Amino acid sequence: MASVRIALDVMGGDHAPRSTLDGAKQALDSWPDLVLLLCGDEARLKALLPQHGLEGFLGSRIELLHAPSVVTMEDKGTAVLKEKKDSSMRVAAQAVREGRAHGVVSMGHTGAAMVASSMVIGRLEGVDRPGLASVMPNKAGRLTVLIDVGSNVDCRAEHIAQFAVMGAVYAEQVLGIANPKVGVLSVGEEETKGTEVTRETAALLRTLPLNFAGNAEGRDIWNGNFDVIACDGFVGNVVLKSSEALAGAIVAGIREALTSSMTAKLGALMVKPGLKQFFRKLDYREYGGLPLLGIKGVSVIGHGSSDAKAVKNGIGAALRTYEGRVSERISAGIAGLLPKD
Amino acid sequence: MASVRIALDVMGGDHAPRSTLDGAKQALDSWPDLVLLLCGDEARLKALLPQHGLEGFLGSRIELLHAPSVVTMEDKGTAVLKEKKDSSMRVAAQAVREGRAHGVVSMGHTGAAMVASSMVIGRLEGVDRPGLASVMPNKAGRLTVLIDVGSNVDCRAEHIAQFAVMGAVYAEQVLGIANPKVGVLSVGEEETKGTEVTRETAALLRTLPLNFAGNAEGRDIWNGNFDVIACDGFVGNVVLKSSEALAGAIVAGIREALTSSMTAKLGALMVKPGLKQFFRKLDYREYGGLPLLGIKGVSVIGHGSSDAKAVKNGIGAALRTYEGRVSERISAGIAGLLPKD
Repeated sequence: MASVRIALDVMGGDHAPRSTLDGAKQALDSWPDLVLLLCGDEARLKALLPQHGLEGFLGSRIELLHAPSVVTMEDKGTAVLKEKKDSSMRVAAQAVREGRAHGVVSMGHTGAAMVASSMVIGRLEGVDRPGLASVMPNKAGRLTVLIDVGSNVDCRAEHIAQFAVMGAVYAEQVLGIANPKVGVLSVGEEETKGTEVTRETAALLRTLPLNFAGNAEGRDIWNGNFDVIACDGFVGNVVLKSSEALAGAIVAGIREALTSSMTAKLGALMVKPGLKQFFRKLDYREYGGLPLLGIKGVSVIGHGSSDAKAVKNGIGAALRTYEGRVSERISAGIAGLLPKD
Repeated sequence: MASVRIALDVMGGDHAPRSTLDGAKQALDSWPDLVLLLCGDEARLKALLPQHGLEGFLGSRIELLHAPSVVTMEDKGTAVLKEKKDSSMRVAAQAVREGRAHGVVSMGHTGAAMVASSMVIGRLEGVDRPGLASVMPNKAGRLTVLIDVGSNVDCRAEHIAQFAVMGAVYAEQVLGIANPKVGVLSVGEEETKGTEVTRETAALLRTLPLNFAGNAEGRDIWNGNFDVIACDGFVGNVVLKSSEALAGAIVAGIREALTSSMTAKLGALMVKPGLKQFFRKLDYREYGGLPLLGIKGVSVIGHGSSDAKAVKNGIGAALRTYEGRVSERISAGIAGLLPKD
């Protein structure tokens, strides 16, 4: 099998480079066709490889790309285009642009990673705004794609319609959902409900060869009624951050309840295996990162707080996105949106 | 103590009139200064009172207001203004307009209840759009007011600023939060983040005598960093419905985990008391309904699926809103937003 080459922003993330290098090791052990391009200060990386059990891969499945600077949370998103052209994030994106890597994975500054991916790797023809897709586990035991969660604000109808098309391709090719049911996020099921933009989006989506089912409501993100829900990046970002915090607060509350008395503590031991399995489904680290769709290559952007497991799973998401030929298929899907010659 | 008179839309809600009449009984038993104006078909109500232990209150703490028709979920929100002028919902709102009741409680069609409250009871001077406030339990063990969740879409900055003022008055007067910390919902903490409307809203709120702390993010709805978060009714409605569904899915998942094996079932018995207390905090029935702020009186709008307990708590919320003199205080607060003569 031909190798898949992923550029990893080793310096991105709150726990980098420890988390990224440990995640790299786990990924290399899991996927034999993976080659990693590690981006960061070359001398420093070289010195760190042995501590993470990575020195044996150097030259065969690991290449080092020198990047002396790092994008920090204090930087503007556009820093990757100007003062931080030599950053690990920019160098990783550049590797995709130059065809040296198939995809990039970063747990760094989300805005900067979106800029690097959109501007350095470049947008697909017909895509106005690349969209960050979030994959949420739903009550029906399946997955729902919510796109855009990447803060693309003040979207026009055609932007949200493009998110819907890109999300549908991702659901079909990467998540294996046949003929995914697509909705536009609104405040009621009825066609008349919503904003002018959501109504226009729905009208546009009705004309496309998609399994479009009309308006989705907030509850539909979790109940399994839709496979793909498209929205403006403002509401998507608010919902994603709110949901993470709510789930976290509930899990914390339950842990507290399980230790509230000696009896509860004993009972907790007995319910632990079942609960652990369920909590795992809620854990963003299982998903590893969010694919940025609509660019000429693969980009997965993870949580700043990612640990090694999340980094490994982010690399896995990049592999699946590449193997699902998502960019090519989005290109084809978006072509249906373009005015005919 | 002077009595507080609340008009109850007996026919509103999925389980009405059983739920509303049982809730009325619980409320009358709980609050001795409460008088209820029951709105519905008079003959039918009279016949039902004995089944719900209410006949003894008739003439003293219960009055019947005849309303032959009912607003259904198939009706448009504006039906209360036209073809359903004689509905239980409209008659209840009318009682507030005419000064016969201090407040109205309805578990019926949310849109219609908002129209009835805004148009029949009337808006306060200086309020362009009344806002539906949701009170969310946060991780810090306190409460956060999110306003508007009532689908006021395409809000301008002054609308969201008014929501903020109304939410702050409610937090202070009804929830007892001194000098509540107010934020505007956005996609990042920094002033530059958000839409043009959120940035304008923040600029407007900075000029007001409020404890305004800038942009709140989705996570802040749950982490206790803000007491009041103001937003457009589109995003508020999506977040509310999404959060209810997510919490429901998590609780269902945990219940399943607790019965996944014989050992888990035994353990579940031991952890039950602690969990029950926690689940209660997540239960919307504890809050009973959402206050519509910015009108010349009190209006509490509940979930269609409300049971008797939720109805009782909705009546309780109306009592507290009236006793907190929320409308008068909102009037005063909003006056600060009006152009000076």
